Amino acid sequence: MKPSIPKGTRDFTPEEMAKRTYIFDTLKKVFRTYGFQQIETPAMENLSTLMGKYGEEGDKLLFKILNSGDWLSALTSNSASDLTSNSANKLVSEKGLRYDLTVPFARFVVQNREKIVFPFRRYQIQPVWRADRPQKGRYREFYQCDVDVVGTDSLLCEAELISIVKQVYKSLGIRVCLKLNNRKILAGIAELIGMPDKLTDITVAIDKLDKMGLEKVNEELLDKGLTTEAVDKLQPIFNMEGSNEKKLQTLKEVLKDSLVGLKGIEELEQILALTAEACQAEQDDGGFSIEIDLTLARGLNYYTGAIFEVKALDVEIGSITGGGRYDNLTGIFGMPGVSGVGISFGADRIYDVLNQLNLYPETSVEKTCIMFAHFGEKERKYAFRWAEELRSRGVNAEVYPDVCKIKKQMDYANRQQIQFVAVVGETEMQNNTVNLKNMQSGEQMQVNMQQLVEKI
Amino acid sequence: MKPSIPKGTRDFTPEEMAKRTYIFDTLKKVFRTYGFQQIETPAMENLSTLMGKYGEEGDKLLFKILNSGDWLSALTSNSASDLTSNSANKLVSEKGLRYDLTVPFARFVVQNREKIVFPFRRYQIQPVWRADRPQKGRYREFYQCDVDVVGTDSLLCEAELISIVKQVYKSLGIRVCLKLNNRKILAGIAELIGMPDKLTDITVAIDKLDKMGLEKVNEELLDKGLTTEAVDKLQPIFNMEGSNEKKLQTLKEVLKDSLVGLKGIEELEQILALTAEACQAEQDDGGFSIEIDLTLARGLNYYTGAIFEVKALDVEIGSITGGGRYDNLTGIFGMPGVSGVGISFGADRIYDVLNQLNLYPETSVEKTCIMFAHFGEKERKYAFRWAEELRSRGVNAEVYPDVCKIKKQMDYANRQQIQFVAVVGETEMQNNTVNLKNMQSGEQMQVNMQQLVEKI
Repeated sequence: MKPSIPKGTRDFTPEEMAKRTYIFDTLKKVFRTYGFQQIETPAMENLSTLMGKYGEEGDKLLFKILNSGDWLSALTSNSASDLTSNSANKLVSEKGLRYDLTVPFARFVVQNREKIVFPFRRYQIQPVWRADRPQKGRYREFYQCDVDVVGTDSLLCEAELISIVKQVYKSLGIRVCLKLNNRKILAGIAELIGMPDKLTDITVAIDKLDKMGLEKVNEELLDKGLTTEAVDKLQPIFNMEGSNEKKLQTLKEVLKDSLVGLKGIEELEQILALTAEACQAEQDDGGFSIEIDLTLARGLNYYTGAIFEVKALDVEIGSITGGGRYDNLTGIFGMPGVSGVGISFGADRIYDVLNQLNLYPETSVEKTCIMFAHFGEKERKYAFRWAEELRSRGVNAEVYPDVCKIKKQMDYANRQQIQFVAVVGETEMQNNTVNLKNMQSGEQMQVNMQQLVEKI
Repeated sequence: MKPSIPKGTRDFTPEEMAKRTYIFDTLKKVFRTYGFQQIETPAMENLSTLMGKYGEEGDKLLFKILNSGDWLSALTSNSASDLTSNSANKLVSEKGLRYDLTVPFARFVVQNREKIVFPFRRYQIQPVWRADRPQKGRYREFYQCDVDVVGTDSLLCEAELISIVKQVYKSLGIRVCLKLNNRKILAGIAELIGMPDKLTDITVAIDKLDKMGLEKVNEELLDKGLTTEAVDKLQPIFNMEGSNEKKLQTLKEVLKDSLVGLKGIEELEQILALTAEACQAEQDDGGFSIEIDLTLARGLNYYTGAIFEVKALDVEIGSITGGGRYDNLTGIFGMPGVSGVGISFGADRIYDVLNQLNLYPETSVEKTCIMFAHFGEKERKYAFRWAEELRSRGVNAEVYPDVCKIKKQMDYANRQQIQFVAVVGETEMQNNTVNLKNMQSGEQMQVNMQQLVEKI
């Protein structure tokens, strides 16, 4: 029997873990400097918490847990002929695996409202599970890294999240562009043309402008059922270009009759002004830019204000971070009026980007610094005492466990990329030394404990 | 609708997370100094990997995942009358949640044997799930922290694991006793009396000696079907006391005719000798002791050599760490002859012990060091710039997001136990300062950026 793991899931080897830990540690460090605190929620949630929150398709992609005990009788006591797998789900399953971190967070806020100090700044780094068809770069178990503030509608939060994006990618060495939009501006455009149901078609069209050109895009919109008048009104938006300021100027003119549209523009202006303020404290922002992009329509039914998405400049890959403001996250759980804003970092995509750009730092905390090789049982005991002494000083040390040929011990050290090997024979024991070899330079010397500590 | 979570599961608030992170970080730091490297395995494993590994009871306690799609037809195509929930499980479920870290680790070793350098030293800190009846201190989702070496039968590994136990509890400040046994000694006792099936009864009896006294224990064993001769032969073992050396001496005499028993004694002697050697590097081991304890019988069908269990001295609680040597972990997955030894730290019990003894250090990395309070929008913008400056120096800083009364802002800082508050008004902006208040001492002063950095 050859063992395997479920498709779409992965094992992580020590080398992969070290890289992932590097990403998570970088995120945590930045999150903390902005005062965010970590929470965790259970892997399993009640299906009543999860169902209906991700659309019909999402409901299907939830991993459901079979009830313990005699689940079959719940099924057979119903007339089986009336049941479909869908309607039978409810009879045999009460719990499901976390699908994202947002709904569990909303549930957490409502359930723990008495313990929480608002505005509540939390981050959460945990795996989520989706019964998606596995593909290259898409897994059934993957980590999300979410950071949210709830209990305030201050636009300072948006500006801080932008700063967080900037600091995270600066720390990781990834050049990015942050795309910025606002749900209210899209609502304003819908008002302008009087066709709110065509909003998705319009954002898709804007997205195609670069590739297809203005003429074809206009044709397509007419095909989709927009009136000639509506397409005419959209022309200044399609022709928008240049700096963010210039785009905002155009939008202000086009949307001058839409209260909600103007509100969206004002929000973006404030966010950009705050962000500019923050940048005064920065010397260099070469690897970071912000671009207003009306095609951003992620979570359209969900977000009510700013919408963010981050693209890596030097790698062909989808968005590596995204988020936005939602005005009523906890309403579904009976706690209305709690505004929040958050972003989610995609650890798996960041992992791929760092791999492709070869940006992982060489120093990995996980590596063993020194291994003791030995010629026999007495020497091994001696080595063990030395290793214990080093460990008590915080040095990562190993003693080769078996008594065997030195070559085999050296092979192990080589394959593990251990930098120093200390060989112990009778002479070394008599002199209270070890023979220290630098595996990179090949340099070798007899050292006592004090010299050893200085060397490594 | 009031939201809730499945019974036996928990949310972790920032305060709880900080405590848990402290425990995990302490474990990781010690594990690393001994050259162990982290791996992770998927939450879901194929049921073919999990079933039959934990006994019949364990199979029932596995959380099973309902197959996606039309699972019902698999069921209805069988004649339902023949099915029980148990036999139907196989038809509707292929995957289950991880029940421990040991079986997934064995699967990992076999599946990744080409990538692994043996002897392989790994640690793994992940949640596991069991459909146990929830009780005080027993959860359906809880973390295990396992550390194992596989691919060597060197007793140095046992000695190193004992050192790890010692270092971990020394770091945490918990006084412990490590109980030590060896499966081979128990096998020797079974040989001695010729009744291997009574081994559990005998270890239970030894455990009751303290409370019930020798006479009653002997009576109970006769009731359980032991011969008078067998009970007689056990008397020297029941009367064992004193130091580990003295116990080993007694065992040597009693088990002198059992090869396997003598092998077990020799193993314990070597482990204790190595451990004594390691302690020479230590100044102080006041909070740590090792005691040979023949009543240790955990995982009796599983372990083949040393067996460990750790008890906290100052708290009434079950074992907080346990493990042992297994000679054929990966055999079930078609890779025989791989010996290993490992221990598992129970994070939830350690959490409870630290809470009861009030041993958490005050410094928590998660806390915000300074919050900026402000009198209006301009002041908030100014504060944001200052906060960004501090964050770039690694200081955890917050700006109160809303423009509101200073009292409300101060209340937030108090409830969050933030140590410093910097108040920004018009005067401060003009002077390029902030009014810094130490929330503990009440001390207040005007400072510029440089003075602020020095103060905090």
